[in-house]
Amino acid sequence: MIGIFDSGLGGLTAYKELHALLPAGDFVYFGDTGRVPYGSRSREILTRYARQDIRFLLRQGADVILAACGTVSSVVLDDIKSEFSIPLFGVVDASVNAALAATKNEKIGVIGTGATISSGAFAKKIAAANPHAAVTSIACPLFVPLVENGYIGRGCTVTREVAADYLAPLRDEGIDTLILGCTHFPIIADIIGDLLPGVTLVNSGAAAAAEVAAVCGKTSGSGSASFFVSDSPVNFDTVARVFLGGETIRAQKVDIEAY
Amino acid sequence: MIGIFDSGLGGLTAYKELHALLPAGDFVYFGDTGRVPYGSRSREILTRYARQDIRFLLRQGADVILAACGTVSSVVLDDIKSEFSIPLFGVVDASVNAALAATKNEKIGVIGTGATISSGAFAKKIAAANPHAAVTSIACPLFVPLVENGYIGRGCTVTREVAADYLAPLRDEGIDTLILGCTHFPIIADIIGDLLPGVTLVNSGAAAAAEVAAVCGKTSGSGSASFFVSDSPVNFDTVARVFLGGETIRAQKVDIEAY
Repeated sequence: MIGIFDSGLGGLTAYKELHALLPAGDFVYFGDTGRVPYGSRSREILTRYARQDIRFLLRQGADVILAACGTVSSVVLDDIKSEFSIPLFGVVDASVNAALAATKNEKIGVIGTGATISSGAFAKKIAAANPHAAVTSIACPLFVPLVENGYIGRGCTVTREVAADYLAPLRDEGIDTLILGCTHFPIIADIIGDLLPGVTLVNSGAAAAAEVAAVCGKTSGSGSASFFVSDSPVNFDTVARVFLGGETIRAQKVDIEAY
Repeated sequence: MIGIFDSGLGGLTAYKELHALLPAGDFVYFGDTGRVPYGSRSREILTRYARQDIRFLLRQGADVILAACGTVSSVVLDDIKSEFSIPLFGVVDASVNAALAATKNEKIGVIGTGATISSGAFAKKIAAANPHAAVTSIACPLFVPLVENGYIGRGCTVTREVAADYLAPLRDEGIDTLILGCTHFPIIADIIGDLLPGVTLVNSGAAAAAEVAAVCGKTSGSGSASFFVSDSPVNFDTVARVFLGGETIRAQKVDIEAY
């Protein structure tokens, strides 16, 4: 059973990729909608939340877990990995590898939440793998609320203007590759791509999904999927459809503070 | 000692008003920055959070408390008021009274977070006081993240465009009075006012502050003020300055889950 968690529903973009790669796999997804957003929280709080999220998925029977959350992957995952006996993946390593493979001019951009960018996790791992690479990292704290409130689609002038503010330094640096270091960001990849023509966008959730699928290659299950959230699942369907592109799913509520 | 709490720092706008009215009063402020935002949470979670916030302020010695949070005031305050033996104020009653006093055409608008508007609290109290009043309520979920990320000021085209989307139905209805039912919203009152010319804006935090000051009229203390938050106070100063207009304050961290 493959466990996937995120601060909210952005991680469903990674679930969608992984499910496409492993259609016979069994999945359990947890979205921490009762404590979203993670991107503005401190390391201390994020560590507690990530441990609880992982313990919940273990209790559901997960034997491999993907932290489909750029913030958790960047800020706490390396510190707590050794506490658990199952393979625990984040979105940083796979997308760093994908970006290094894609770049030609060794100028790489990273965008993510405030906590992700403050952690410097992406930049450090890129530097460790290729000391010649120049990394420009920009926090984009409004992208998550804009996506969650439906300010998406190529014609959305509000998100386009916010994105133009955030992305201007990346254009000035002449990057040729950009890591979307938050699983919400692929939803507005069209707007980001328009503002950075010729730049290769690395979807961190998709890169991590490919890495997990490679490890789970021989796994075949019953093709089941269950979804859990930590606040009322009333509007879950509506928002989930944004991330899954039409598929309707049901979620159950869990008291995550009990884990 | 006057206790004030909010989901985050928006309630500082109410603190500022109350402090101006009672400069010799003693204040303790709690901003639940570790669990912000409240506006998208369920009633069940909001009830737990509000009880903890109030218990924390009681422990600090508060003998009157203002829930300077439109969401808590709307969704849970009436249900839990009787559990506490001190006067407990919210922002709904005072701003409903102010709006009813201000309106001439009995067409009143209310804007707030998703949870505030779903609760119908403002609309119900207006209807109870004046069954002839027509109320139009609109959820404005992006205003809080826009304000917290500094997308403020008359020239901010992003916030102006989002506001134009949200406020169009209010203009169509011909309201003459609008309740700003969230303590973050006074920060963008200039943009809201430009889009609704001739409409009287009711600042719910200021209206509640006047109500609390009237009750505490004889209170005179040492003019102290202490500030607590539930996540790291590292960036507290920067954001607090947005709400207080220049004044620099320090905050301490509290483990709110322990209350």
